[in-house]
Amino acid sequence: MEAILARRSIRRYTNKPVPDDVVGDLLRAAMSAPSAYNEQPWHFVVIRDREVLDKIPEFHPHTQMLHEAPLAILVCCDQNLKKTDWFWPQDCAAATENILIAVQAKGLGAVWCGVYPRQELMDGMRRLLGLPEHITPFSLVAVGYPAEEKPPANRYDESRVHYDRW
Amino acid sequence: MEAILARRSIRRYTNKPVPDDVVGDLLRAAMSAPSAYNEQPWHFVVIRDREVLDKIPEFHPHTQMLHEAPLAILVCCDQNLKKTDWFWPQDCAAATENILIAVQAKGLGAVWCGVYPRQELMDGMRRLLGLPEHITPFSLVAVGYPAEEKPPANRYDESRVHYDRW
Repeated sequence: MEAILARRSIRRYTNKPVPDDVVGDLLRAAMSAPSAYNEQPWHFVVIRDREVLDKIPEFHPHTQMLHEAPLAILVCCDQNLKKTDWFWPQDCAAATENILIAVQAKGLGAVWCGVYPRQELMDGMRRLLGLPEHITPFSLVAVGYPAEEKPPANRYDESRVHYDRW
Repeated sequence: MEAILARRSIRRYTNKPVPDDVVGDLLRAAMSAPSAYNEQPWHFVVIRDREVLDKIPEFHPHTQMLHEAPLAILVCCDQNLKKTDWFWPQDCAAATENILIAVQAKGLGAVWCGVYPRQELMDGMRRLLGLPEHITPFSLVAVGYPAEEKPPANRYDESRVHYDRW
């Protein structure tokens, strides 16, 4: 609960690498997400190669933090695994959010960079990582040990809450 | 972290009502989700009226558990608040996933019922709750104290993990 409420987007990182077991925990959290008809349509590309990380901002304008981040995780959908056309982006978003909460719980920092459904960003990821046609890149999470501190945002807004009908 | 890994879809509930302060915590968790350009495009309809809950399964075939659930939360997008056409479903999915994790952390049980982008389900919710045109119903979360127990699913699958490229 605290990890949910305290989470903020972190875009500055120390150069401390993220250990393998922590990466494993983040992936375990991601794959614990619910999915429509339990389809679990996801794949994950763990990116730690400095050259690969540095190339992403060349085609994705909102990923400059990757020059500093020691790790990024690309969440993808396998179009052969999805059971409907409707819900797989929601499944991948739930997996992405689980990564963010797990990151916070582990004392790391992260930011969610949108990819799908922007064609030029999807094409860029596909070319760079050699993704096959049936794999749709969905979101990219930059991860590292935080080099900035942000207080909880407290975004609760009573005017957004309605009871029993609009 | 434990709440993420242990969470399962719960469709059987006791008749114990969910207290107001707990509902508040779930909404606080939802509104703590990240959103593209920090647009926070969401609204929430808290449904506890038995008559309203019982009407939803008449048009949404996967919501029979609402006959037993003391509470459902409809996550909506305000189309006037979104800053792009691309990312608002992902924002609403992140808010929905935060509700599910908070539910688990509070000892409750829940299940995510998809609504958007199925037109007939969206139309049904719109008519029932009197949603204005600019409000898009996105997902419905049934919530209650669990009357079934499920062990953690352990969905981790090493074959879904790739390193630095496909």
